[in-house]
Amino acid sequence: MAARRVLKAVLVDLSGTLHIEDAAIPGAQEALKRLRNAPLVIRFVTNTTKECKRTLLERLRGLQFDISEDEIFTSLTAARNLLEQNNVRPLLLVDDSALPDFEGIATDAPNAVLIGLAPEHFNYQTMNKAFRLVLDGAPIIAIHKARYYKKKDGLALGPGPFVTGLEYATDTKATVVGKPERTFFLEALRGTGCSPEQCVMIGDDCRDDVGGAQNTGMLGILVKTGKYREGDEAKISPAPYLTCDSFPLAVDHILKNLL
Amino acid sequence: MAARRVLKAVLVDLSGTLHIEDAAIPGAQEALKRLRNAPLVIRFVTNTTKECKRTLLERLRGLQFDISEDEIFTSLTAARNLLEQNNVRPLLLVDDSALPDFEGIATDAPNAVLIGLAPEHFNYQTMNKAFRLVLDGAPIIAIHKARYYKKKDGLALGPGPFVTGLEYATDTKATVVGKPERTFFLEALRGTGCSPEQCVMIGDDCRDDVGGAQNTGMLGILVKTGKYREGDEAKISPAPYLTCDSFPLAVDHILKNLL
Repeated sequence: MAARRVLKAVLVDLSGTLHIEDAAIPGAQEALKRLRNAPLVIRFVTNTTKECKRTLLERLRGLQFDISEDEIFTSLTAARNLLEQNNVRPLLLVDDSALPDFEGIATDAPNAVLIGLAPEHFNYQTMNKAFRLVLDGAPIIAIHKARYYKKKDGLALGPGPFVTGLEYATDTKATVVGKPERTFFLEALRGTGCSPEQCVMIGDDCRDDVGGAQNTGMLGILVKTGKYREGDEAKISPAPYLTCDSFPLAVDHILKNLL
Repeated sequence: MAARRVLKAVLVDLSGTLHIEDAAIPGAQEALKRLRNAPLVIRFVTNTTKECKRTLLERLRGLQFDISEDEIFTSLTAARNLLEQNNVRPLLLVDDSALPDFEGIATDAPNAVLIGLAPEHFNYQTMNKAFRLVLDGAPIIAIHKARYYKKKDGLALGPGPFVTGLEYATDTKATVVGKPERTFFLEALRGTGCSPEQCVMIGDDCRDDVGGAQNTGMLGILVKTGKYREGDEAKISPAPYLTCDSFPLAVDHILKNLL
C-alpha cells in the first residue's frame, strides 16, 4: 500500500475460519472478543448453502461466539434476493436445511435452477431434470462455485463441480451469487458506511474469500485452517495481503498493524 | 478440397446414427447394405460407455444390421487399452453392463478413476470418493466427454458433465479416450491400410463425431437424427463437410459423389 489505509470494517468467513463443523478453531471466540473492542464494523460473510441463517446463528452461539443475526450475510440471502428481483420460480437444489431461507418463493413449474451444496440432490436423475430445464431456457443460479470444503474426515466436493457440469452440458454460464463475486462483498457492506478500501476480509478459501475480497478493493487475509492446502497462496494474483496460521493470529495482526 | 480424394473407408457412429435405443433409424439397414456393395472398408466407432462389445453386437444384430464384431471399435476398448498400457488400478465408474469389457483388470486399492456414463454411480458419495482419489494423485480417464445423448424421452446427460465437474474440483484434466480424440480415430483405422484423408465419418454428434474426424484429416458428415439439434453445425469450425437428414442420405451422397 502506498498510503496507510484507515481500517473501518472486518469481514469474517465462518466455516473453516471460525469453526469446522461443530468445533471452534482454538482461540477464535476470544479473538473475536478482542476484535470487538476495536472501533470496527464486523460482518460475517458465508457461502453457506446448507444452513439457513437461523441454524447458522444457533450453531455459532452454541460454540460461544458472540454474534448477532444482523451481522451475518449469507449466500442464501443473496440468492433469495436474486430470485425475487428476477421473479423466477426455481428448482431448488439446496439442502433441506436451507429451505427456511426460501419460504414463500413459488417453485411450481420451475423456470430457473438454483444450486447449492445439496448432496441428496446430486444424483443423475435430479441433475438431468435440471439439465432439461436449462435446455428449455431456465437460467442457472449458483449459490457459489466452491470446488470443495473441509469436513472432519477430509475434503469433500462443494457445489462448484455440479454447477460446472451443468454449465458444460448446456453451454451456458451460471450466475454466481456468493463469494467471490464482487456484488456479494458490496452487498455485505451495505448499510455499514464503509467502502471496500476500508475493509479487510479473513477467510480460509484463497480464491473465494481472499481473491474475491481483493478484487473488490479490500485487503485479504488467508488463514491456514479449514480447507487451506499448502500452496493455496499461489492460486491468486496478486497474492494474499497476508497469510496467517489461524483467525486469532489474523486478529492480532489487524489490531497491531491496521488500526 | 483442392484435389479429388480417393475414398477407401467409412467410419459410422452407432447410437443416434444407425439406431436410437432399440429402434433402427428408418432405412439404415438397407443403406448399410448398399454401402457394403462399394469397395470400402467399414468400421463402426462408438463412444458407448454402457454396453460391452458383445451386448452392442447383439443389439445391432437384433435390429437386423449386418455387422461383425471385428468391425466395431469402442471407447471401452480404447479405455481398457489405456489402463493396461499405464498399468493402473481403476475405480470403475461405468455401468454394470460395461464391466465385461474390463474383466481381469485389477481394481483393488484404486489409483486411477475411469468414468463412463454411469448414472447409478453419479451420486455425491461416489463422486466424492473419486474426488479424493484424484486429490491423492490418481489420473482421471474419461471414456468420453459427451455433454448429452438422445434417449427416447428426450436428451439426457452424458458423462462429460461429471468428468468436467471432477476436473474443476481438482484443477486437473482428464485423459479422454473416445471421440473426438485424434488417437481414437487413428486406432479405429489401424490395420485397415487407410489414412484419415481416405476416410469419411458419419455421425450425429457435431463436435465428437464430425469435428473430431475432421481434425484428424477425415471428411465429416453430420446426420440430423439422434442428438442433433438445430444449429449444431455452427459448433465446429471448419463446418461439417456435409449435413444430411439421416444415415441413408449420407450413404447416397457417398456412393454418388465420393467414389
